[in-house]
Amino acid sequence: MTEVRHMKWWGWGNEGIAFEHRNKPEFAPFVQKAIGLDVSAPSVYVPEFDTLDVPESRIGDSFQSELADIVGEDHVHVDAMSRVVHTFGKSIRDLLRVRSGSLERTPDVVVYPGDEEQVQQLVAAAVAANAVVIPFGGGSNIAGSLEPAPDEERVVISLDLGRLNQVLDIDEDAGLARIQAGALGPDLERDLGKRGWTMGHFPDSFTHSTLGGWVATRSSGMQSDKYGDIADIVRGVRVARPDGMVTIRAIPSASTGPSVREMIVGSEGRLGVITEATVQVHRTPEVREIVGYFFPSWEAGLAAMREIAESDASPSVTRVSDAPESAFSFATRKESKGIEAAGTKALMRVLKARGWDLDQICLSFVGYEGSASHVRYEKKLVKRIVKRHGGFGVGKGPGRLYDQKKFDTPYLRDFLLDRGAAGDVSETAAPWSKLQHLYDHTISSARKAYDDIGVQGWIMCHLSHSYHSGACLYFTFAFMHGDEPLKQYDHVKSAIQQAFIDAGGTLSHHHAVGVEHSAWLPQDISPEGVALMQGLFDSADPQRNFNPDKIIPRS
Amino acid sequence: MTEVRHMKWWGWGNEGIAFEHRNKPEFAPFVQKAIGLDVSAPSVYVPEFDTLDVPESRIGDSFQSELADIVGEDHVHVDAMSRVVHTFGKSIRDLLRVRSGSLERTPDVVVYPGDEEQVQQLVAAAVAANAVVIPFGGGSNIAGSLEPAPDEERVVISLDLGRLNQVLDIDEDAGLARIQAGALGPDLERDLGKRGWTMGHFPDSFTHSTLGGWVATRSSGMQSDKYGDIADIVRGVRVARPDGMVTIRAIPSASTGPSVREMIVGSEGRLGVITEATVQVHRTPEVREIVGYFFPSWEAGLAAMREIAESDASPSVTRVSDAPESAFSFATRKESKGIEAAGTKALMRVLKARGWDLDQICLSFVGYEGSASHVRYEKKLVKRIVKRHGGFGVGKGPGRLYDQKKFDTPYLRDFLLDRGAAGDVSETAAPWSKLQHLYDHTISSARKAYDDIGVQGWIMCHLSHSYHSGACLYFTFAFMHGDEPLKQYDHVKSAIQQAFIDAGGTLSHHHAVGVEHSAWLPQDISPEGVALMQGLFDSADPQRNFNPDKIIPRS
Repeated sequence: MTEVRHMKWWGWGNEGIAFEHRNKPEFAPFVQKAIGLDVSAPSVYVPEFDTLDVPESRIGDSFQSELADIVGEDHVHVDAMSRVVHTFGKSIRDLLRVRSGSLERTPDVVVYPGDEEQVQQLVAAAVAANAVVIPFGGGSNIAGSLEPAPDEERVVISLDLGRLNQVLDIDEDAGLARIQAGALGPDLERDLGKRGWTMGHFPDSFTHSTLGGWVATRSSGMQSDKYGDIADIVRGVRVARPDGMVTIRAIPSASTGPSVREMIVGSEGRLGVITEATVQVHRTPEVREIVGYFFPSWEAGLAAMREIAESDASPSVTRVSDAPESAFSFATRKESKGIEAAGTKALMRVLKARGWDLDQICLSFVGYEGSASHVRYEKKLVKRIVKRHGGFGVGKGPGRLYDQKKFDTPYLRDFLLDRGAAGDVSETAAPWSKLQHLYDHTISSARKAYDDIGVQGWIMCHLSHSYHSGACLYFTFAFMHGDEPLKQYDHVKSAIQQAFIDAGGTLSHHHAVGVEHSAWLPQDISPEGVALMQGLFDSADPQRNFNPDKIIPRS
Repeated sequence: MTEVRHMKWWGWGNEGIAFEHRNKPEFAPFVQKAIGLDVSAPSVYVPEFDTLDVPESRIGDSFQSELADIVGEDHVHVDAMSRVVHTFGKSIRDLLRVRSGSLERTPDVVVYPGDEEQVQQLVAAAVAANAVVIPFGGGSNIAGSLEPAPDEERVVISLDLGRLNQVLDIDEDAGLARIQAGALGPDLERDLGKRGWTMGHFPDSFTHSTLGGWVATRSSGMQSDKYGDIADIVRGVRVARPDGMVTIRAIPSASTGPSVREMIVGSEGRLGVITEATVQVHRTPEVREIVGYFFPSWEAGLAAMREIAESDASPSVTRVSDAPESAFSFATRKESKGIEAAGTKALMRVLKARGWDLDQICLSFVGYEGSASHVRYEKKLVKRIVKRHGGFGVGKGPGRLYDQKKFDTPYLRDFLLDRGAAGDVSETAAPWSKLQHLYDHTISSARKAYDDIGVQGWIMCHLSHSYHSGACLYFTFAFMHGDEPLKQYDHVKSAIQQAFIDAGGTLSHHHAVGVEHSAWLPQDISPEGVALMQGLFDSADPQRNFNPDKIIPRS
């Protein structure tokens, strides 16, 4: 049997782990007010795999044994559970579909190659047989990058990279590590950490996503302000194609264009299967701190982040939540007692006396890494900017808590879904000059969409990454769904996506295009830009074997 | 008449400006020793345009008037001088050919569109007529990116962007400027500077190169350590294609892959004509300093640069010359007198007393920008690292001089060529772990190549850009050529390029591929990588109208 663990077939993360609200006294009233959900109501959902109507595999004996010849019989899986687990990622659309048993099309087979040569042989065999290959990493994608097209009549192979999970080499002089594509975040960071290194890439999906997935979706992580987005971190890459390997050596920077490295990054399997990448790694910093700040308003918080980005400081994290998300954060705190609770109350009294509107408080986190003296220096620079915008520091406690809990958030979505509420996230990036309007327009578009479908909805936002010229805004939204949750969700999601584009943002800053965002591609990069991309796909994959229908829909 | 200035048809830069050695007393003996040239000998070359055998234009009246209908008669040039000026860039191969009258193929017409719409119409007309379009900016390219193929039988249009030279808009909130592709470095920096901004992109060609050229060749500048390479600086871009404009909006970062923005950067005109870019601009820093340092050896200098790159410091310039280039720098100083000369002598005595080998001294420059206190802070960090590697600071004087003179170096090449010496530059980038070997291997390969052709040659090097994982090494080489200078040059250049690749470097860090480097592309990015790129070109340009034969040679 193949020893590759997967997330729950019906939700996020590991079996046995779930969101817990009973130790968070402010959570229930908050959710009641926000979307009208009584969280004390029991779950209306019970996962029952056996009730699913899973389509038969179309693999056929001869092709199955051809694949088995390459990877070994043990690593070719056609059972229903394997195929269901590899059908979707973990967007709310995915969860709604798998929970309702809407499995129009699953992969016909899941294969687990053991090395790069086997990947290359699988790719060649698939093209020879005119089968479809969908690479699979951690399965955390939320843009629909993993699902087979419902009307796909050819054999669909889910090529799971889970056995290619090793840190192959660390070049300690250059700060470069060769790592196999199937390595999960925690595993590769553990192996790097043992030798004193970190890659510094921590997307929200970190615990259940892989290096190959990050590269294939142009991912970004919590500390990307310092370490760079995955497009910056990946210097070399290897991609299995039918006739051999694309081999991009690790070069710090090159004038060879059009950059093939950048064609691979974000290609979502449409150009072949990424087998390994050579990534920048850094010495584990002497000090790593995340400091919390309060701002009197969203406008003030945004302005401060912009000024930090323009300043001589270069923090690892810049994050500020709008008032609704700050309120949400406060509501998901565990019960605080004694001195801590008294301290919070006293602080709020002081702020009120100073004229702050407590409902408008925005919680911010800024991260610092480096030598102790460098962290002191940068904190001083940031403190001055924060103060200029009416904010102040609230210490390391909130940041430490956020840092520990940040990967648990997706479990909340299942908790809500179990009780009839659909929630998901949408994010974009835009120039600083457009962010306030983009924010306002997105919020009002979502509210209008909620009105259209007659639901009580919630939307909140944080700035998650800063750049010289702009930032990423990350929206989380939820509502009590009715009988047609998918249709309702699509209406709200579409309104948000269109608002992004209309306000000058991109269709996604770090969640990829997949099928969920592809409708906005021509508006984002222009029809002529899409045509260039289409030409690349057509020439690289004339039979449409490599994860077809992703990024650009079939015309 | 079109008011667009061009460089000398036979050499670098403006008419009337030339390298002057008579105020540099150490120059003549240095050159005599290095390559056996007596610089007091008069120039053997006199530019005589009328003696050139310039091929007839193949434009034909009807196509010429079609072009005139688009841009106006005044902006369609078919005269010999216009066509010769637009035939080559300024590599030593280009200079040797134009000086010898080897003009196998010139453009048949030079057109100067006045706006983006005219560019788009020209592109459409060219494709409709199956003509070749070669975009032309400042004409400073040294990779052969501008020349028509000698056997090109179709009409060749040199599309000069010189009239599209405006800074269109500065978004002061986002630090983004929309600038037309034909804007020359000094002009766009002047216009940005008036409003307190800088783009911070200063390639050696700065005075005679354009934004469009920088984008088309994936350029890099002296201060790219801080401001980024052009691939980082360019956020939005517009490209004229036969059916319309590719419009990439300025977005700080996006997960849309394969990145069309990155397909355009470095495309050398093969995907269409870049008309404008939206670039990151920064507030002119309060302080800008370039500090000189001495290292006792090349190894020590390299190691210090690596440590700076890994440190919490983020200087704008990191540069260290090997001993031969340091000696060359010393030899091109103007005569120093009095205290300065005495000071230098005293310093050398002290170093000798401390055990330094004066022939091994390596001169380094590190640049700092930001607030006064930030510059102080960074200088302190760097000072500590420099000291650890046995180096020490020699103040701001040498840096200021270097900063003022850096754009004059190309004039030296014409001075040498006038006297029978061929010289040029080749540069690469590689991981830190490979740099010392790459350096050694390149030097020994060049020496062997000189021996092969029986000349006394010179080669020197500096590290010009640092990255987390590696750096750019920039080699300058020269030799007294014989009767077949092109053949001799190709032998030496090829040896150097092959050494780069064999030692793990790229074919060029910032001079593009063109035709001079294309032979090494399959070794650099693998044949499968070249195939992806070829597919993109074939699909985007099935008739091969857009600057064909560049990057990937005709098969």
